[in-house]
Amino acid sequence: MSKILRVNMNDMDYKWEEVPKKYSTYAGRAMTTAIVHDEVEATCDPLRENNKVVVSPGLLAGTPAPSSGRISFGGKSPLTGTIKEANAGGLSGTRLGNLGIRAIVIEGMPETKKDWYSLYVSKDDVELLKTNDYAGIGLYDLIGRVWKKYDTRPGIVGCGVAGQRKNKSAGIFGNNIENTDPGRYAGRGGLGAVLGSKRLVAIISDDKGADRPKPKDKDLFDEGRKKLAEALDEHPVTGKLEDDDGNPYGGLKNYGTNVLMNILNEAGGLPSRGFSSGRFNGASKISGEAVHELVDKTKKKFGDKAEGMYGHPCHPGCIMACSNVVPYEKTGKAHVSPLEYESAWSLGTNLVIDNLEHVAELNRLCNDLGLDTIEAGNTIAMFMESGQIDYGDGEAAIKLLKEAYKEDSVVGKLISSGAKIAGETFGVTRIPVVKGQSLPAYDPRPIRGIGVTYATSTMGADHTSGYTIAAEILGIKGDVSDPREMKKAELSRNFQATTAYIDSSGYCLFIAFAILDIDKGFEGMTQTVNGFLGDEVDVTKYGLKVLEMERDFNRNAGFTKEDDRLPEFFRTEPLPPHDVTFDVPDDELDAVYKDM
Amino acid sequence: MSKILRVNMNDMDYKWEEVPKKYSTYAGRAMTTAIVHDEVEATCDPLRENNKVVVSPGLLAGTPAPSSGRISFGGKSPLTGTIKEANAGGLSGTRLGNLGIRAIVIEGMPETKKDWYSLYVSKDDVELLKTNDYAGIGLYDLIGRVWKKYDTRPGIVGCGVAGQRKNKSAGIFGNNIENTDPGRYAGRGGLGAVLGSKRLVAIISDDKGADRPKPKDKDLFDEGRKKLAEALDEHPVTGKLEDDDGNPYGGLKNYGTNVLMNILNEAGGLPSRGFSSGRFNGASKISGEAVHELVDKTKKKFGDKAEGMYGHPCHPGCIMACSNVVPYEKTGKAHVSPLEYESAWSLGTNLVIDNLEHVAELNRLCNDLGLDTIEAGNTIAMFMESGQIDYGDGEAAIKLLKEAYKEDSVVGKLISSGAKIAGETFGVTRIPVVKGQSLPAYDPRPIRGIGVTYATSTMGADHTSGYTIAAEILGIKGDVSDPREMKKAELSRNFQATTAYIDSSGYCLFIAFAILDIDKGFEGMTQTVNGFLGDEVDVTKYGLKVLEMERDFNRNAGFTKEDDRLPEFFRTEPLPPHDVTFDVPDDELDAVYKDM
Repeated sequence: MSKILRVNMNDMDYKWEEVPKKYSTYAGRAMTTAIVHDEVEATCDPLRENNKVVVSPGLLAGTPAPSSGRISFGGKSPLTGTIKEANAGGLSGTRLGNLGIRAIVIEGMPETKKDWYSLYVSKDDVELLKTNDYAGIGLYDLIGRVWKKYDTRPGIVGCGVAGQRKNKSAGIFGNNIENTDPGRYAGRGGLGAVLGSKRLVAIISDDKGADRPKPKDKDLFDEGRKKLAEALDEHPVTGKLEDDDGNPYGGLKNYGTNVLMNILNEAGGLPSRGFSSGRFNGASKISGEAVHELVDKTKKKFGDKAEGMYGHPCHPGCIMACSNVVPYEKTGKAHVSPLEYESAWSLGTNLVIDNLEHVAELNRLCNDLGLDTIEAGNTIAMFMESGQIDYGDGEAAIKLLKEAYKEDSVVGKLISSGAKIAGETFGVTRIPVVKGQSLPAYDPRPIRGIGVTYATSTMGADHTSGYTIAAEILGIKGDVSDPREMKKAELSRNFQATTAYIDSSGYCLFIAFAILDIDKGFEGMTQTVNGFLGDEVDVTKYGLKVLEMERDFNRNAGFTKEDDRLPEFFRTEPLPPHDVTFDVPDDELDAVYKDM
Repeated sequence: MSKILRVNMNDMDYKWEEVPKKYSTYAGRAMTTAIVHDEVEATCDPLRENNKVVVSPGLLAGTPAPSSGRISFGGKSPLTGTIKEANAGGLSGTRLGNLGIRAIVIEGMPETKKDWYSLYVSKDDVELLKTNDYAGIGLYDLIGRVWKKYDTRPGIVGCGVAGQRKNKSAGIFGNNIENTDPGRYAGRGGLGAVLGSKRLVAIISDDKGADRPKPKDKDLFDEGRKKLAEALDEHPVTGKLEDDDGNPYGGLKNYGTNVLMNILNEAGGLPSRGFSSGRFNGASKISGEAVHELVDKTKKKFGDKAEGMYGHPCHPGCIMACSNVVPYEKTGKAHVSPLEYESAWSLGTNLVIDNLEHVAELNRLCNDLGLDTIEAGNTIAMFMESGQIDYGDGEAAIKLLKEAYKEDSVVGKLISSGAKIAGETFGVTRIPVVKGQSLPAYDPRPIRGIGVTYATSTMGADHTSGYTIAAEILGIKGDVSDPREMKKAELSRNFQATTAYIDSSGYCLFIAFAILDIDKGFEGMTQTVNGFLGDEVDVTKYGLKVLEMERDFNRNAGFTKEDDRLPEFFRTEPLPPHDVTFDVPDDELDAVYKDM
């Protein structure tokens, strides 16, 4: 039976609650959004006691549905001031799903700001532990300590030093399946800082002895998950691709998300040098293909001792398995896992850094500090844009980022505070942010639909909130490549609604490729959800309901259509090589949510 | 005949325009607001080329009306994102008034960001001069150079290194009457950064050979100015006070605006230690009385060589003459002029610094750098609040502020970027800002009317936009001391409307004391304005029209009632010694502008 765990950090207490009837179909993003919408005053200071952090495993987390173990975190974002949901893979979704926990609501904060705490949840136990030894240290170290203490490989989520210091770029980390790397990030929107403001370093979930959650209609559920698994295997993006000789090519499994680097570069939509070019000469050197090659090379050289890897899952039961482990070339040992496209872009391409080891190191530092890689990369770009360090200087970027470890470093705090604050501090007028959150790895000038999503997303610039790239660049659901012919508002809205549903289900967003292109994939997805609930849920209606709550929160927080805009320079500075500006009219942006 | 000078920094050109009929009664704030409202896109990036800087001397600037030589600057504020008007004394209001210039509109920006320019305006000449030698230097130096070049004591306004670097706390400086000090500041809202973004360091106005502007109805005008002068002389705040033995006491003339320090401290509404106390033990040591005493002491010791001073005017023809010159105790030489109450508060009381020389030095540094003292003090407080330096450590604060001279200092840039950015960088949750602009020297918890003004002002937290202190603390216009009995919304609205009129007239806001308490003062004010225009203007209607344009701009920029709020901590943290919170309900805040 699912339930809600409510933890009060004022008096260090907790209680169990039934899931209210109105939330009966909610989990993941729908659940975090509903609770934040209903319980958090929209105008509250995100880093004071009236904000909450809601943790909710996706609806199907723990079930055998393929790739369904994602976990969502919600609250009012200190970066954007909007409502925020960020999700990730890792172990905690599955662990909490198995424990029958639909949501953990973290409220209040201790009156004295002295000690640091961890929340431990198992089948028979809930404990708030004073864990000062988990604070002020790197996250690789933290996870190692927790896994040493508990031999059951518990799920761990929490915040690093960036969050503990309430820096706005602080993400919520999660642990990998196989190792003690903090490689799973609900990175965006600064929710790590909200956890830090509540003095909570880690939430440890141990599902030993717990049963998997049971679908109400097992037959429908099982039929659905088989269909979806087939579709995922068949689709060129998510399936395993081999040529006639059995050699792998293309796709997420072989090259990870970073398969996009060369594709976007080719398309001229790969932002480089702080969004001043759409192409980067060094892109291929830090692409998924380059990582693949490096992994193969080190495997050949170091054999069993080689730790580099591609094609492994980010959470139990993921059959897309798009994660990589980037090895050190010299030793074959693991350097960072994973290196995603967005991170390779933000910490590489965007900074004109084409040295894969430098990029991996920047990513490892972010993971260790508890920083969102997208925000951190864009922030370093502001230091480069203002001439503090040079574009392309990987070593200088690493040195700069290491400042963030130092408690007293003003530079370290600034580098952890996001592109908006850093850019404004430096008087930069090309700050790529919407609602305070910096843009990811697709330039909105040549790829207008994603620009519409950036502008109108309920959470600031965010590709995952309505990934029109699938249609605009990857040709999913037919060819929509002529931007003049498209209704970008409708495209973005549909993606945003479907995404809100997927983010609630526990499914990884990457199933979108297969469900949009292959009918049985879509059927499979809905059958698993409906089978699990024993209820029928309409994908679009469900997604729109989530978006409606989010828009309502934002409206109450003071957001208007004037906030649904891209920064001025996207409209005035043409992007090479295609020399286009972002020319979607404001009224088309406003059409995305015209009725809510 | 009044006219408008339009300067285009794109092509380094200018043209003269007639004042459009719809602006015929506008000058000062009304003029800057009207032009910004009509010509600047509300959603533009304040530091890019679509913003404008409008300079407009008050309507009566140059005339013999008493204390009427103020000058206004307008634009979209990079600090707040709202429309902004800031005004100051100095020489330029009078010079431009005598030249018959109703407004200068600075548009565009040079394409190459290499050179720095100055605008020179005289009776027969307009020149855009390449003046790279005026950039990157302190403002004392800059004014000295200009006055050396032009022997006519021209008015100078412009931006210092803070503005040249587009820092958000950069004010627009003006020069003093008597010396080459940059003591006259249109400090707030970061308009210095907008000038800097346009690569304009200085606007030099030379009225040699020009005639004073002529009132259309000279008799009415002369009758008015006499009445007003009498009222100003008679009023206890603005007049010259002597006891029976001829010794001065009280009032602006003797103690300057800093006469308020002890009064606010007594009332328990003097914010100290970053708005955590309403009282400061060291207040009297940095009060107007303390400056007065120091001046007397150095006069006695150094005789004619003593440069300390009180009771001198900030612009030609001001009979209130509330300015001081703070001398060095050891040499009697001028240290800073003037030291206003708000500056002594922000750089002293708020930082728990009670050493007058340290406070004067902090103020001198702000003046030299081109920083708003209120914003700079509140920003230093954020460094103290987060433990970077200690409260009370004047030497550390001076050292910190000096970082702002260094082109490459990240700390220097942060200290020049305002309390919001610095506080957010440090994870501070007691950041005293409204719409991004930090609060001045009156705590809104015990003094609720000024809190209503802070919250609802069209320009972020600003005491001068509706100085209810006159009624709440100084007992002007009767006793309104019981806050429970007052309609704070109405009080604030009336003050805001009257202020908008005064800010347009060229009069110093301090005439408010006399015009509110003494009927002939009010009559005199309106008679001078009406006599000058040869037209009848209603004070409240005129003021409300200005506010209406400002509100309209802000609405178009995306501001809503949710922005008309004080930070959360004012509602939740009681202020000693009275232990009160800010408890004005939101709907009372919204009532201030319910119809616009």
